[in-house]
Amino acid sequence: MTLKLNAAEVSKYLEEVFPQVDGMFGIDRLDEDLLVMRLYNDERHLRPGGTVSGPAMFSLADVAAYVATLARIGKQALTVTTHCSIDFMRKPAAGVDLLAEARVLKLGRTLSVTDVLLYSEGEAKPLAHASLTYSIPPRG
Amino acid sequence: MTLKLNAAEVSKYLEEVFPQVDGMFGIDRLDEDLLVMRLYNDERHLRPGGTVSGPAMFSLADVAAYVATLARIGKQALTVTTHCSIDFMRKPAAGVDLLAEARVLKLGRTLSVTDVLLYSEGEAKPLAHASLTYSIPPRG
Amino acid sequence: MTLKLNAAEVSKYLEEVFPQVDGMFGIDRLDEDLLVMRLYNDERHLRPGGTVSGPAMFSLADVAAYVATLARIGKQALTVTTHCSIDFMRKPAAGVDLLAEARVLKLGRTLSVTDVLLYSEGEAKPLAHASLTYSIPPRG
Amino acid sequence: MTLKLNAAEVSKYLEEVFPQVDGMFGIDRLDEDLLVMRLYNDERHLRPGGTVSGPAMFSLADVAAYVATLARIGKQALTVTTHCSIDFMRKPAAGVDLLAEARVLKLGRTLSVTDVLLYSEGEAKPLAHASLTYSIPPRG
Repeated sequence: MTLKLNAAEVSKYLEEVFPQVDGMFGIDRLDEDLLVMRLYNDERHLRPGGTVSGPAMFSLADVAAYVATLARIGKQALTVTTHCSIDFMRKPAAGVDLLAEARVLKLGRTLSVTDVLLYSEGEAKPLAHASLTYSIPPRG
Repeated sequence: MTLKLNAAEVSKYLEEVFPQVDGMFGIDRLDEDLLVMRLYNDERHLRPGGTVSGPAMFSLADVAAYVATLARIGKQALTVTTHCSIDFMRKPAAGVDLLAEARVLKLGRTLSVTDVLLYSEGEAKPLAHASLTYSIPPRG
Repeated sequence: MTLKLNAAEVSKYLEEVFPQVDGMFGIDRLDEDLLVMRLYNDERHLRPGGTVSGPAMFSLADVAAYVATLARIGKQALTVTTHCSIDFMRKPAAGVDLLAEARVLKLGRTLSVTDVLLYSEGEAKPLAHASLTYSIPPRG
Repeated sequence: MTLKLNAAEVSKYLEEVFPQVDGMFGIDRLDEDLLVMRLYNDERHLRPGGTVSGPAMFSLADVAAYVATLARIGKQALTVTTHCSIDFMRKPAAGVDLLAEARVLKLGRTLSVTDVLLYSEGEAKPLAHASLTYSIPPRG
């Protein structure tokens, strides 16, 4: 699947359509095999004890699947999440960024399916595992 | 399933363990059949256009399942979400609160399963449908 | 949502397109609010001990969501399951039929979302809870 | 995660506890990184047109997660599926075996989480993607 948008282009587009998340996320890698997104460690996402909250992990998985999909289909603002299944498996480490590894398993005409693994930076075992479906608007 | 905590008790406990969500949520109803939770309309949760974001809907479903479970098992701070499946079905209405109807389908020794339907206040059709599993710590 | 097919019509169609399931399932009720489908107690679906297997429960949930969707959209053979989330909550009772209560939560242009609760006949508490998404082929 | 049972041991155990699936499944590979299970092409699982049915794909994912878990925990017959999320992404090829690649993402005290990708033998793109949770009985 050739990419239509590179990391800089998709980041810029994300800031335009979701200005409220500006500065929360970064892209470490984006190519045909893998997207690695980063949720910066920030007190806004924290639970007491300094670990990242469940909703912040959901947000990272959701935005990673969105970015991975848009990189393949281009700027389609009406692309929306229709489903997410997420397993929370381990407690995040305190005080570090979270990383998401996203792989697009299917890019169809009307939907994409993306697999996402979340890690605390520097840890080998995943925190959470998610599968997200995005609905792609009709083209033309 | 008799309740161990009423709405006032579980609200107070929620504020103690998750002070960062203080003021975001309210409890409209809590009895053995049904919990109705409310996410107050608030610009922090909004997407451009004034509708509630996916992560805010996830948060509401997650906290509703947590409250419904704790009301039955009592103050068990280590109760954590292990799974969420959520279908996003319709766009939220702008400028209104969101309501969650939560029903505990199973309360086992080590886990609970809760069904949650999300609505824009005043709308008949659900926005989203979620199923959440919480892991309950061993009692002893 | 008015129905395009009644119970007899959709049963007949099911036998035509899936002859291999002939005689496994029955329809107890089909109207705009609710579909009740029945998996006949049959040794083909059993685990040792006489209880129904997980795959047989999945099959019942899947066929119930299919029937509930087709009753609304008519004979569209290319309608296919794209997602199922299922929570197995209790052990089925031995020697009885299984019942599925299916409710269509969303009927969109390209997909349907159906909530399904499974019961052992005569039991009050659900065995399993599923949400299924069907992809609906473009009409034209 | 060191394995407690090898492929021959877990196959033999599977035949003892689930005699009804005897001959349906094979194990191509079982080590600490990966399990590859095979669903033999067999008319019992087929839809008209010769492709494997959704319930047969569910069965393969379910048994693969069971085998991957038991290989790590030993012969624990009461280990049961509590959740499955499955995305059906492509139509199986006709007339070939199905392969499941299963990876245990978490092995906890009371539950395991396994990621499963399903393929038609000889195809590069996955047919389906599943995540399964098994509840592990208390030891001792």
